[in-house]
Amino acid sequence: MSVVPLVTDAEAEANPAIKAVFDDIRETRGSDFVNNIWRALAADPAGLKRTWESVKSLMATPGALDPKTREMIYIAVSVANNCEYCVHSHTAAAQAKGMTPEEHGELLQIIALAASTNHLATALQVPTDPEFQAE
Amino acid sequence: MSVVPLVTDAEAEANPAIKAVFDDIRETRGSDFVNNIWRALAADPAGLKRTWESVKSLMATPGALDPKTREMIYIAVSVANNCEYCVHSHTAAAQAKGMTPEEHGELLQIIALAASTNHLATALQVPTDPEFQAE
Amino acid sequence: MSVVPLVTDAEAEANPAIKAVFDDIRETRGSDFVNNIWRALAADPAGLKRTWESVKSLMATPGALDPKTREMIYIAVSVANNCEYCVHSHTAAAQAKGMTPEEHGELLQIIALAASTNHLATALQVPTDPEFQAE
Amino acid sequence: MSVVPLVTDAEAEANPAIKAVFDDIRETRGSDFVNNIWRALAADPAGLKRTWESVKSLMATPGALDPKTREMIYIAVSVANNCEYCVHSHTAAAQAKGMTPEEHGELLQIIALAASTNHLATALQVPTDPEFQAE
Amino acid sequence: MSVVPLVTDAEAEANPAIKAVFDDIRETRGSDFVNNIWRALAADPAGLKRTWESVKSLMATPGALDPKTREMIYIAVSVANNCEYCVHSHTAAAQAKGMTPEEHGELLQIIALAASTNHLATALQVPTDPEFQAE
Amino acid sequence: MSVVPLVTDAEAEANPAIKAVFDDIRETRGSDFVNNIWRALAADPAGLKRTWESVKSLMATPGALDPKTREMIYIAVSVANNCEYCVHSHTAAAQAKGMTPEEHGELLQIIALAASTNHLATALQVPTDPEFQAE
Repeated sequence: MSVVPLVTDAEAEANPAIKAVFDDIRETRGSDFVNNIWRALAADPAGLKRTWESVKSLMATPGALDPKTREMIYIAVSVANNCEYCVHSHTAAAQAKGMTPEEHGELLQIIALAASTNHLATALQVPTDPEFQAE
Repeated sequence: MSVVPLVTDAEAEANPAIKAVFDDIRETRGSDFVNNIWRALAADPAGLKRTWESVKSLMATPGALDPKTREMIYIAVSVANNCEYCVHSHTAAAQAKGMTPEEHGELLQIIALAASTNHLATALQVPTDPEFQAE
Repeated sequence: MSVVPLVTDAEAEANPAIKAVFDDIRETRGSDFVNNIWRALAADPAGLKRTWESVKSLMATPGALDPKTREMIYIAVSVANNCEYCVHSHTAAAQAKGMTPEEHGELLQIIALAASTNHLATALQVPTDPEFQAE
Repeated sequence: MSVVPLVTDAEAEANPAIKAVFDDIRETRGSDFVNNIWRALAADPAGLKRTWESVKSLMATPGALDPKTREMIYIAVSVANNCEYCVHSHTAAAQAKGMTPEEHGELLQIIALAASTNHLATALQVPTDPEFQAE
Repeated sequence: MSVVPLVTDAEAEANPAIKAVFDDIRETRGSDFVNNIWRALAADPAGLKRTWESVKSLMATPGALDPKTREMIYIAVSVANNCEYCVHSHTAAAQAKGMTPEEHGELLQIIALAASTNHLATALQVPTDPEFQAE
Repeated sequence: MSVVPLVTDAEAEANPAIKAVFDDIRETRGSDFVNNIWRALAADPAGLKRTWESVKSLMATPGALDPKTREMIYIAVSVANNCEYCVHSHTAAAQAKGMTPEEHGELLQIIALAASTNHLATALQVPTDPEFQAE
């Protein structure tokens, strides 16, 4: 259950600020599907706009990293931050952008390995080697 | 400061279990440098061996993902888990494996974006869309 | 599903240690509603008492911060710690103490912003400016 | 030590994209002080601009919450996310915006209380009461 | 709902790599029950094998700590990392290995106390006393 | 560096509320050493008292778990919550209460294992088996 009611398409049609974002999501993605995070964020139209613009400018714009790699990084952060919704939505997005089952399996093993050495380094309070320092 | 003393090369020479791992680290990486996490883990030679074997089998063995991508995923998890040592060591490793400043900058922006939407989805308790479900 | 059975009102009536806390919750809040966290904590009456006394002394006693601000801080921590139950219960509490939809929206945007710069500062290992030090 | 070199004022003068942000930070804050997070972010001028604009639009623009409350919420998230730099910088900012020692002390006690009940609710997997649901 | 389909016994029978692990789980535990984490991990048979071998070698092999204490430590980490599945499975495991309700109650209070002082020490950025240093 | 000045013994002598807690710490522990967390918390004498009483009643009072096990649980939570100060202070405390190097090594391996399976279960969104439910 959501903390706020999810905005329906009918409600979005009646609110120009929400409608503008929903329209842009649909056009940018070339799909009629507007997933629940946007319908929940729409409780605060300014926050909806700000969040969508951040996502669009980083995830839907060409840059240094390819779309599949970006989604795998997104999954990694979402797992470590333990966001159930984000794990589901970005795993689906990575698959849509070409992530294979082999890549998914390896991604998860690297996430698990990193988590284990993260905890070990913290438990041991290992001092950073001077070799790793920015010169 | 470390929770346990860091094992020196002289001490490693005197302990076959530790020496075997340090030798394998050096051979696998083609470098004489053994960084501090291994010197701290060496307080528990069985744990040292277990940890090194996990790292070696996932990070130093060909698989579905290329070495640079693996390191960027490692950075993403380490940042979200807030491991200072790991951020330093894996940023250095990613750079050694070809991560450019542009890729590093974009990686950090995606990590930050993911963190922000992770927190939003949690704050709103957004229900997962059925479209994201495994069939 | 809960890890322990939730204590019902009938069971609480039969256990003086639990009954005393449930009675105090009802009296302090001026409401007959005892929410699930207390029914789960009641599996350990000593822990129930300790936890309620902490909550009561900080959240139900006048101090330096007003009740609404306290609840918004509670939400912020609960989101970052990813506690589903706490996000729901403290969002409801903040609303009951006057948090408006505009304040809720802004609270969430600040939480998301903080999460993003938290991750950036960690990813960059930014050294603390001496200007921020306690003199 | 930082993962990237900190950009000095001289280097910022030579790079128009960085200079524009540093100038805006100084003008917005009415202070010549540009703290280290911006000098580290400047390694990626696009990320610097994006981050500053987010911070400026939320933290330096009037809205539903007052500046002091915003900073206390920022502290709460930064503590739970364990960002050393952010704890220092936003505690200093909250103090500059009027947070008293009494408010600081109470803020910390609420953060600690929330952390403890967050962990209890997670350990017990308490189901959310229907009373907390959005209607 | 799971991100990947859960592998059934029939499917495991048809895949020797998966079958070998499921058989070993059953034999090691002396029980026919294979819980869901293994059925989800089986989407990546290599990851399944790696994960099971780690769990088996640490949790099902005599060592310095007794089985009940190991499970209580596992619970503590799982609560702090907020893993719903792990809280449930390891609480059940700890109970099967003899954890009493009194021990469970005390475990939870210590977890909650640690969480609160963790947040306080972070919020205050307390410098480590030299007395705690490894000599 | 600390967010607040650390209270010295001379300052504590001059403040009865602080002095009472410092005296009780010394008497309870049978040692003249008052470590830095208490000196930082003393910036808020009411918070100092509340925190010390919680720690004392759980960690310095006989109960269901022995002192060494309690400290190992404290370490596990502190590592997962990434509290540098707490890792140092509670590792020292566990050693003072009899934790051997073998137990410390095994503790760390279990923490690392738990972290890895925590992340896997989250990444896979494994549904809890009905067998683990409280009846």
